[in-house]
Amino acid sequence: MSGPTPHPWPAYRWPDGKRSAFCFTVDVDATGPYLWGQRAPDAPRRLGQLEQRHFGQRSGVWRLMDLLDRFGIKGTLFVPGAIAEQNPGLLPAILQRGHQAGLHGWFHELVADSTDSEFTAALEASVELFRRQTGTAPQGFRSPAWEMTPHMLAELQRLGLWDSSLMGADHPYEIAGVTEVPVQWALDDAILYKFSALPGDRTPVTPGAVLDSWSEEWEGQHQYGGLTMLTVHDWISGRVQRLRVLEKLLDRVTAAPDCWVATVGEVAAWHAAGNSGRFVAEATIPEPIEPRRFR
Amino acid sequence: MSGPTPHPWPAYRWPDGKRSAFCFTVDVDATGPYLWGQRAPDAPRRLGQLEQRHFGQRSGVWRLMDLLDRFGIKGTLFVPGAIAEQNPGLLPAILQRGHQAGLHGWFHELVADSTDSEFTAALEASVELFRRQTGTAPQGFRSPAWEMTPHMLAELQRLGLWDSSLMGADHPYEIAGVTEVPVQWALDDAILYKFSALPGDRTPVTPGAVLDSWSEEWEGQHQYGGLTMLTVHDWISGRVQRLRVLEKLLDRVTAAPDCWVATVGEVAAWHAAGNSGRFVAEATIPEPIEPRRFR
Amino acid sequence: MSGPTPHPWPAYRWPDGKRSAFCFTVDVDATGPYLWGQRAPDAPRRLGQLEQRHFGQRSGVWRLMDLLDRFGIKGTLFVPGAIAEQNPGLLPAILQRGHQAGLHGWFHELVADSTDSEFTAALEASVELFRRQTGTAPQGFRSPAWEMTPHMLAELQRLGLWDSSLMGADHPYEIAGVTEVPVQWALDDAILYKFSALPGDRTPVTPGAVLDSWSEEWEGQHQYGGLTMLTVHDWISGRVQRLRVLEKLLDRVTAAPDCWVATVGEVAAWHAAGNSGRFVAEATIPEPIEPRRFR
Amino acid sequence: MSGPTPHPWPAYRWPDGKRSAFCFTVDVDATGPYLWGQRAPDAPRRLGQLEQRHFGQRSGVWRLMDLLDRFGIKGTLFVPGAIAEQNPGLLPAILQRGHQAGLHGWFHELVADSTDSEFTAALEASVELFRRQTGTAPQGFRSPAWEMTPHMLAELQRLGLWDSSLMGADHPYEIAGVTEVPVQWALDDAILYKFSALPGDRTPVTPGAVLDSWSEEWEGQHQYGGLTMLTVHDWISGRVQRLRVLEKLLDRVTAAPDCWVATVGEVAAWHAAGNSGRFVAEATIPEPIEPRRFR
Repeated sequence: MSGPTPHPWPAYRWPDGKRSAFCFTVDVDATGPYLWGQRAPDAPRRLGQLEQRHFGQRSGVWRLMDLLDRFGIKGTLFVPGAIAEQNPGLLPAILQRGHQAGLHGWFHELVADSTDSEFTAALEASVELFRRQTGTAPQGFRSPAWEMTPHMLAELQRLGLWDSSLMGADHPYEIAGVTEVPVQWALDDAILYKFSALPGDRTPVTPGAVLDSWSEEWEGQHQYGGLTMLTVHDWISGRVQRLRVLEKLLDRVTAAPDCWVATVGEVAAWHAAGNSGRFVAEATIPEPIEPRRFR
Repeated sequence: MSGPTPHPWPAYRWPDGKRSAFCFTVDVDATGPYLWGQRAPDAPRRLGQLEQRHFGQRSGVWRLMDLLDRFGIKGTLFVPGAIAEQNPGLLPAILQRGHQAGLHGWFHELVADSTDSEFTAALEASVELFRRQTGTAPQGFRSPAWEMTPHMLAELQRLGLWDSSLMGADHPYEIAGVTEVPVQWALDDAILYKFSALPGDRTPVTPGAVLDSWSEEWEGQHQYGGLTMLTVHDWISGRVQRLRVLEKLLDRVTAAPDCWVATVGEVAAWHAAGNSGRFVAEATIPEPIEPRRFR
Repeated sequence: MSGPTPHPWPAYRWPDGKRSAFCFTVDVDATGPYLWGQRAPDAPRRLGQLEQRHFGQRSGVWRLMDLLDRFGIKGTLFVPGAIAEQNPGLLPAILQRGHQAGLHGWFHELVADSTDSEFTAALEASVELFRRQTGTAPQGFRSPAWEMTPHMLAELQRLGLWDSSLMGADHPYEIAGVTEVPVQWALDDAILYKFSALPGDRTPVTPGAVLDSWSEEWEGQHQYGGLTMLTVHDWISGRVQRLRVLEKLLDRVTAAPDCWVATVGEVAAWHAAGNSGRFVAEATIPEPIEPRRFR
Repeated sequence: MSGPTPHPWPAYRWPDGKRSAFCFTVDVDATGPYLWGQRAPDAPRRLGQLEQRHFGQRSGVWRLMDLLDRFGIKGTLFVPGAIAEQNPGLLPAILQRGHQAGLHGWFHELVADSTDSEFTAALEASVELFRRQTGTAPQGFRSPAWEMTPHMLAELQRLGLWDSSLMGADHPYEIAGVTEVPVQWALDDAILYKFSALPGDRTPVTPGAVLDSWSEEWEGQHQYGGLTMLTVHDWISGRVQRLRVLEKLLDRVTAAPDCWVATVGEVAAWHAAGNSGRFVAEATIPEPIEPRRFR
C-alpha cells in the first residue's frame, strides 16, 4: 500500500538553494483611502484625518526607505495614481534609491465600488502616469484592499503585469494566466495598527505583540519554505514605534543567509521562469447557493 | 452537620486511569461559510475571499494532517457535504491516513437560516455522500457555528450519531439521548485568528497570546480532569504561524503520559459505554419572558 | 503660601490598620441575561447559547466556591431571582458554605428596559424569594449591568440595602443615603472573556494578559489604599483556564497580611460605622445640554 | 550623481542639544463627552455613566498631579469650559501647583456636530472663563476628539493661541499660521483603556501591553529626535492600574538627561522662536472625488 496521498501543491523551489523568500512592500496610500471613503460631494473631509495621513508623505515613506537602506535591502512600493500625481517626485525618488515601484489603483478605489470599465480606465491611466513620471514601464500591480475580479486579472494579463493581491498560497502561483505573488492579512500592518477614530476602527496592537506575530510568521515561512510578504503603509509604519518593530524583524531576517530577500518583481520573474514547480489556479466564481439551496 | 453540598456534576472518570483527555479536531470549512453568507443570487462572490479560503484545500488541511502524523496522533476532521463533493479525494485521504472524519452540514448552513426539514435533508445527503465516498458510515456530527435545536438532536439520535457542538460541560455528557462531546469557544482558532476584511472582523490575536491561552486551558483541564477539545480550521490554522503554535502546544500535551489523546469517536464510545459517571441534560427551550414579564 | 490644594476625597481608612481591601464577588447570571435579551415571544432561544450558560450551574459556580474554600476566604454571590427560583438549592448552599448572597434583579432585567415600578416589583419579589429560600433577609444589591437610577437608590434606602453597582470611587462611599461598595470595569471578567458568537462580542483576552491586568490593579489598590472589587461570573470564570488566573491572583492577594479580604457586606458595615472618613455623593442627573446648547 | 533625495521634512532641532522632547498632558474631560453624546432632551443620562466619570474629579486628576509632583515635572491639563465652570477650583489649583492649563472646548462639543459660529462662541466663552477663574490668559487649545477645520485654525490664529490637536508630524510644525504641537493616537490612553459598556466600546488593553507600547514609542522618539506627546484622561488614567503604568514610563523618561520634559506651551514657544527648522503645512481641504470620479 502507498503512503499518504501527496499534497495537491507540494513544496516550492526557490533559486540558488534558498530555503524561503522575503519581500518588504509598502502600500503608499497616503490620503487615498480616506478621500475615497469621503468621495461624495457633501462628505466631510476633515483636517485631522488628512494631517494624520500627510505624515506619511512628509516623514513616513522616507523613513521606511532609509530603514531599507540601512539594511541594504530593496523594497517594493505600490503608489496609487492620484498620490503619484500630487507628489511628482515620489516615483522617481523610489527608483533612484534602487527600490521597485508598482501600481495601486488611481484613487485607491475599491473593487466593490467600481465597474469593470472604471477599473480599466484607472489602470491605463496609472500605467501612463508611471511611464510619464519615471520613463519606465510598470511591471506589477497590487489591488487596493486586496480584492480582485476575473476582469481585473484579464486586464493584468493583457498588459503583462504580475499581481500581488491574493492569498491562495504562501508562495507564488499562477491564476488566470497571471503570476501571483501572494499577500496575507497576518503580514499587513494596517489591520493591526490602523486607527483614525473612524467607525469600525479597532484597538491598535502593541509593538511587542506585532513583533511576536511577524517573527513567528517569518520563522514559519523559513521552516516551511514559503514567502514572507510583508506589507506596511507610509502613514502607519512610518511612525517611530512601528519602525522599531521593523528594525527588530529585519535584524532577524537578514541574519539568515538562506532567506532570499527580493523585490516582488524579482520573485515574480523567478516564478515566471518556470523552475519552481507547477502551481496553477483558475479564477472561478461559483454559482450562488440560493436558487438551488438544499433540495 | 454535613459538609458542603456536592457538585451537581462530579468528577468525570477517564479510561485506564487517565487524568484528562485531548481531542484535535479540524472543521474543514474551506469556502463553505463565505458562500453561505453570499448565497443570495445577487451577492458578490469575490476572488480575494475565495482564494484566501482555497489555501486551506491546497495546503492547509494537508499540513495539519502532516503535523498530526509527526506527533503520531489521530485527529477528527469535520467536512461539509459541499466541500467533500468538490474535493472527492478528501474524505478518503483523511481515513487512509488513519484520522476520523465527521459530518458538518452540507453548505455549512447555519441553524438560524434553516428550517427543520432543510436540516434533515442536508444531514441525510451528507450521510449518503460520506458512505458513497468512503464506503463506511459516519459516526458523528458537528454543527456549523455550533448551534443546535431539539429537532437536530432528535435527528442525530434517530441516525445513531454522536454530537460535538455544545458547551454544557467540559467533558462528555448526554443530552436528549445523544452523546455530546463538547466544544468551547476558548479552544476555537476562528474566534482568535479569522480575518477576511469583512464587516465585524476582529483583530487577529498574535501567536504568543494564543499559545498562552491554549496551554493554560490544557493545563487546567489536565488539573481538573476534563476534556481539551481543540478546534482549528483548514484555511486558518493551516497557515505557518499557527502551525507553529499547534506544534508547541502538542509538544506539551504529548509529553503528559496521563493525558488521553483520542479521536472524538473514541471519546464518544468511552462515554456511551457508561463507566464515566452519569451526566444527563435535557434539551429544554424555556418559555419567553415577555408575555408574563415581571408581574 | 500654602501647599497644593487637598484632594476632594482624601485617603480612606480601613479597619485594624489594614492598607487595602479585597472582595471576591460572583454575579451568578447563568441563563438570565441571554433570556432577557431574547425576551420577545418570537425571539430564538437557542440550545447552544443555553448550554454554554448551563455550564455555570452544573460546574462553574461550584468550582468557584471550591476555589474560595481552598484559600479559606469568603465571597459574595449575587443571584437573580429567576435563577434562584430555578435552582432552589443554590442560595442555601452559598450560605451553608459560609459565603454571602446578594440580590441581582429578577430576570437580570436592564435599567434601560424597565420602568420604576417594574424595578420595585422585581426588587420586592427577589427580597421575598431570598427570605423564603434562606430564612434570612438579604443585605445588599448589585444592579444587572451596573446601571442605576435615583429611583433605584431610593428604593434601596427604603429597604435598608447597601449597593455594589457604581464606580464613583475605588473605596466605599455614600450616595443618596445608600452605602455604595463600588465596582469597576477593569475588574469584571465579562468584558474581558465573554464570548457567545453574538453580535458585538469581542475577542476573549488571554489569561496571561488578564492576570497582568488584575495583578496590577490589586498592587495599585494596595499601594493607594483602595478596594479591589473583583467580579466574575459562574459560566465565564468557572471555566478551568480562568480558574487558574484566579488561583494565581489569590496566591498574591492572600500573601499580603495587610490586605483585608472581606465580603461586600463586611465592607459595607465598616463604612456605615462611620470611621473611614466622609465620602458623600449626590445622585444628580444634570439637565440636557441641547435646549440651551451653546448660546 | 547625487545621493538619495532629501526628506521633505528633515530632522527637528531641540533646545540645548536635547535629543527629543516629552510632554505629559491630561484632557480633563470628566462628564463632558458623555453629556455631549446624550445632549438631546430625551436622551438617558445614567447615574452609572456619570459616577464612573465623577471619579476623575474626586480622585483621578489629583492623583495624576501628585504623580507629576513626585517626578518633579510639569504637565499641561486641558479643561472644557463646562467642567471648569462646575469645578471653579480646578483651573486655579492646576496653576497653583505649577502646571499649565489649556482650553478644550466648552461642552467637549465635537467638530462634526458644531457650526463655525458655535465653535467661535464656545472658544470665546472658554477664554473668558479662563481669565475670570485664573486671572491669566490661556495660551493654547486642544480640540475635543482631535478634529480641526480651517475656520478653527483661523480663530486660533486670531486669538494668538497655539494648537495641540493634529498629527501631521511627530514634532512641532506650523499650519495655517498656527503653531501646532502634535498629538497621535498611539499615545492616547482613551483608545486603549476607555470602557463604559456603551455601543462600540472596545476591550481595555492590559497595563503590560500599554507600557510596552508607550515605552517603545518614547524610545523611538528619543532615537529619531521627535516629540512624545502623551495624553491621558482624569477618569481613565487616574485609576490605580494606569497610574502604575505612568509611573513606570516616567521612571524611564526622566532617567534620560537628554530628553526635554516640558509643557506644551514651552514646546510651542521654542518652535515659534524659529530655531528648530522650517516645517510649514497648509490647511487645505481637497475637492471631492465624486463629481469627476475616474473619467
